[in-house]
Amino acid sequence: MSKIRVTVWNEYIHERKDPEVAKIYPKGIHTVIAEFLRREGFEVRTATLDEEEHGLTEEVLNNTDVLIWWGHLAHDKVSDIVVDRVYRRVLEGMGLIVLHSAHYSKIFKRLMGTTCSLKWREAGEKERIWVVAPWHPIAQGLGDYFELEHEEMYGEPFDIPPPDELVFISWFKGGEVFRSGCCFYRGMGKIFYFRPGHETYPTYYDENVQRVIINAVRWAAPVKRPRPKFGRVEPLEEIS
Amino acid sequence: MSKIRVTVWNEYIHERKDPEVAKIYPKGIHTVIAEFLRREGFEVRTATLDEEEHGLTEEVLNNTDVLIWWGHLAHDKVSDIVVDRVYRRVLEGMGLIVLHSAHYSKIFKRLMGTTCSLKWREAGEKERIWVVAPWHPIAQGLGDYFELEHEEMYGEPFDIPPPDELVFISWFKGGEVFRSGCCFYRGMGKIFYFRPGHETYPTYYDENVQRVIINAVRWAAPVKRPRPKFGRVEPLEEIS
Amino acid sequence: MSKIRVTVWNEYIHERKDPEVAKIYPKGIHTVIAEFLRREGFEVRTATLDEEEHGLTEEVLNNTDVLIWWGHLAHDKVSDIVVDRVYRRVLEGMGLIVLHSAHYSKIFKRLMGTTCSLKWREAGEKERIWVVAPWHPIAQGLGDYFELEHEEMYGEPFDIPPPDELVFISWFKGGEVFRSGCCFYRGMGKIFYFRPGHETYPTYYDENVQRVIINAVRWAAPVKRPRPKFGRVEPLEEIS
Amino acid sequence: MSKIRVTVWNEYIHERKDPEVAKIYPKGIHTVIAEFLRREGFEVRTATLDEEEHGLTEEVLNNTDVLIWWGHLAHDKVSDIVVDRVYRRVLEGMGLIVLHSAHYSKIFKRLMGTTCSLKWREAGEKERIWVVAPWHPIAQGLGDYFELEHEEMYGEPFDIPPPDELVFISWFKGGEVFRSGCCFYRGMGKIFYFRPGHETYPTYYDENVQRVIINAVRWAAPVKRPRPKFGRVEPLEEIS
Repeated sequence: MSKIRVTVWNEYIHERKDPEVAKIYPKGIHTVIAEFLRREGFEVRTATLDEEEHGLTEEVLNNTDVLIWWGHLAHDKVSDIVVDRVYRRVLEGMGLIVLHSAHYSKIFKRLMGTTCSLKWREAGEKERIWVVAPWHPIAQGLGDYFELEHEEMYGEPFDIPPPDELVFISWFKGGEVFRSGCCFYRGMGKIFYFRPGHETYPTYYDENVQRVIINAVRWAAPVKRPRPKFGRVEPLEEIS
Repeated sequence: MSKIRVTVWNEYIHERKDPEVAKIYPKGIHTVIAEFLRREGFEVRTATLDEEEHGLTEEVLNNTDVLIWWGHLAHDKVSDIVVDRVYRRVLEGMGLIVLHSAHYSKIFKRLMGTTCSLKWREAGEKERIWVVAPWHPIAQGLGDYFELEHEEMYGEPFDIPPPDELVFISWFKGGEVFRSGCCFYRGMGKIFYFRPGHETYPTYYDENVQRVIINAVRWAAPVKRPRPKFGRVEPLEEIS
Repeated sequence: MSKIRVTVWNEYIHERKDPEVAKIYPKGIHTVIAEFLRREGFEVRTATLDEEEHGLTEEVLNNTDVLIWWGHLAHDKVSDIVVDRVYRRVLEGMGLIVLHSAHYSKIFKRLMGTTCSLKWREAGEKERIWVVAPWHPIAQGLGDYFELEHEEMYGEPFDIPPPDELVFISWFKGGEVFRSGCCFYRGMGKIFYFRPGHETYPTYYDENVQRVIINAVRWAAPVKRPRPKFGRVEPLEEIS
Repeated sequence: MSKIRVTVWNEYIHERKDPEVAKIYPKGIHTVIAEFLRREGFEVRTATLDEEEHGLTEEVLNNTDVLIWWGHLAHDKVSDIVVDRVYRRVLEGMGLIVLHSAHYSKIFKRLMGTTCSLKWREAGEKERIWVVAPWHPIAQGLGDYFELEHEEMYGEPFDIPPPDELVFISWFKGGEVFRSGCCFYRGMGKIFYFRPGHETYPTYYDENVQRVIINAVRWAAPVKRPRPKFGRVEPLEEIS
C-alpha cells in the first residue's frame, strides 16, 4: 500500500505577528502538525496563505489524499478559485480535516451549507474531551476522555448539519458543551471537524490531539473507485 | 393553533410556453399545489419568477412558515439576493419543500453543500415509491408503496449529504432506484426533498403525492423558540 | 383531532419506602407527571408495578398512544409477558418515553439491543442541559439551555446505538457530559430517552423538564397508517 | 500490522440435504467464503452449527476479529449461550457481518432490537445493487452498481432501526427495492448486513459480492482501545 499523502494548510499569520504565539509555534502550526504526521509515516507537505495560489495548485491538490486546514484571521483572503478547487477535490474523494477556528473557513461553510456559528470565550479554561463513539476509528488508542488544561471555549449551539457521526463531546469548566469531533460525508469525500487548537496554547503538541489527527488522516483517506456517472442515461431494462 | 402559512413558488415557464404542459397545468403547477393545500386548511399564497423579487419579498418570507419550491429551466435566473433571503429564513426556522427538478435550484445546492447531481431519463416509465420509514409523519396515511404510471426517471447516485431521515425509495421500470423522500435539518429549519413532479405528467393531481406534500407541510412547520445566541459569551461557572 | 392518550408507568417503590422521596413525591412520580400532562389537555392514566399485569393489560396498551416509563429498583420484577406486550405495541406505533434510571429497564434494553450502561454519581451536583438540535419539536419553547440545580450525574460513554436524533447534551459540574435527550425509531414507533429525574430531587416539578416531556408526548404520538405487510409476496411486475 | 482473524459461521444444512444446493456449494457456503478471504490475506477459520458449541467457543471468539454469519433453517437451534457470547464480543469490538437470511438470526435480532421482518419471494429474478454511499470503504472498487442475474427477492419495509450508514439499495425486477447494505454501530462493535446470498444461486462466487465482503471485513475489524468504564465514578472536578 502506498503512503497516504497529506497536505497541511495554515494561514500562518498569528505565528509571525504575535510573539506569544511565535514562542509556542516558532515555525508555524503547520510545521508542528507536519512533523508528527511524518513520524507516523505519512508523506506530508505544507502550504500557506502567502504562497502562490496559497500553495494549493491543481497539481498539489491532485496529489493530496488528505488536506488539513487551519485558519482564523484571514478566511476572506482565501481566493474563491482555490476554494472551488478544494471543494471539487473533496467531492472527488480527497479527505478534509478542519481544525478549530477553521469552522469559519469558506470551504467548511460551503460544504456544510450552514453558518457554522458557535459560542466562544478566550479564557484559557480546562476542556475535557469525551469519546461518545467507542467503535470509531478516530477514537483508536484513546481512553474514555482526555483533557486539555487550557483552551479557548467553543459552545453549543454549533450551527452545522447533524453530523453523520459524532465522535467527541467537550466539557468546558465554564459550563458549556460542544460537539468537538464531527464526521461528514460529501460526494466521495470524508470530512472531519476537530475543535481544539487555539494558537495561544500548545495544543498540537498534546499526544492525544496528535493521536486524533493521525487517526483522522487514516479515516479520511480516499476510497478507490470510479467517479459516479451523472446525467442522461439509457434504460437498463425494457421499459414498455 | 393558528394556520400554517404556505408559499408555493414556481418558476412558471414550462406551463406558458409548452402546450403539452399547459394542457395539464393550465394555471401553473403552483396553482394546483396551492389548491389542494388550501382544501387542507392551510393559508396559502403563490409566487413566481416573473413577479417583482420573484414574489419573495422580505415581507412575504417573514410571513411564510413553509416554502414550496418548483423550478427547472431558470435556476440561474433566480436572483442571489432572493436566494440569500430564503437561505436566512430556512436557518431561522422556515420549512422548505423542494420538488423534483428543484434538486438543481440554487437554494437547495447551497443548503446541501454538494452538487445535487443525479442520473435521469425522460421516458415516461413507471415509478413505484416505497416507504422505508414506517414511523415517519410524512408517510402518514400511505400504504407500503404507491405508484406513478408515468414519470421522469431520477437515478442514484444522488449527490446529496446522507439524509438525516430517508422516507422513500423509488423503483423505476428501467432499472434504477432513487432516494425520493429525504429530510434534512439545517439551523432551525427543516427541509424535505420530494422527487416526483415532472411537468409533462399529471403527478400533482395524484392523491398520494398530495398526501405526501400535505404531510410534509405539517412536518416542516417551524418550532417556536428563541433564536440561538452565537458569539462571545461570559462563563456560566467559575473558571479559576 | 382526538386527544393523545398517555399512560404514565412508575414502579412506585422509592416513594413508599423512602421518607425523603415521599416528601417530594407523596403520591408518586407518576402522579406528578400525570398532572402536568392533564393540564396540557392529554388524556392520561397511570399504572404501577403492583397492579395486576403492572396495570399494562392488552386493553390498556391498545388504548395508549404514548407510554411513559420510570423504573429503578425493580427492573427485574417487570414480567417478561408485559415487556413483550409493550415491545409489540412500540413496533406497532405506540410512542415510548423512557425517563432517567429506566435506561436499565428491560423494555429499553430490548429495543436498543445494547447494555445501556453508563457512568453515574449521586452527589446532587448541577446539571446544565444544552439544546443541540435547534429545529427539533422536543426543544420547542426552550432557550439554548436550562439548568437543574441538583441532580444525579450520568456520564459518557452511554452504551446505546447512535441516536437517530440527538436533542440534548448535559454538562455536569463534576466534569462529565451525557447525551441526555435521544430519539430512536423502531418499527412504527418513536422512542425518546430523557435523562433527568432522580427520585430525591424535585425534577419533575421543573417547568423546563415538564415542557420537554409535553413536547415529547406530541412528537411520539403514533402516525396513522396501515401496518406494513411482511412475508411472501407475488411480483408486482413481470419477472421473465 | 497483524492479519485480521475472520471466523466464517454457517449453519451448513441446505448444502448437505438439498442436491441442488450441494452442486453449487459442495463443501458448504462457509468454505467458499473462507477461500476468497484467505486469498485476500486474512487469517480465516470456519465454524458450523453441528460442531461443539457450534464451533464458537470462548477461545475461538476471543481470537476472532470479524465474525461472518450465514443461517436460514435453524436459527432456533443456535444455543442462547453462544448467542450471548457473540453478543458480548460484538459489544467488546468484534466485527459482525450478517449475510442474507441471517437477518432472522437470533444474534441480529438481538442487536437490532426489532423483528427484522421483510417481504420476500423466491423467483430467481434479477437484482441490481446500487451504491448510495460513494465515499464508503465497503464500496471500494465498485462501480455505480452491480448485478446478480438470479436471486431471491427481499423487499421493503425491512424492520430494522434506521441504519447508521446505508451503503447499497437493491432494485428487483419484480418491482421491489431493499436496503441491501446497512452498517450499524453497537458498543465498540461494527455490524454490516449484506442482503445477497440465497443458497440456490452461486452468489458467493460473484466477484462483486466477494469484493463487498472483503471490504466489509476490513471495515468491521476492531478498533484498539481500552474498554469503556461504566458504573459509579468520583467527580473529576470540585462539585461544591
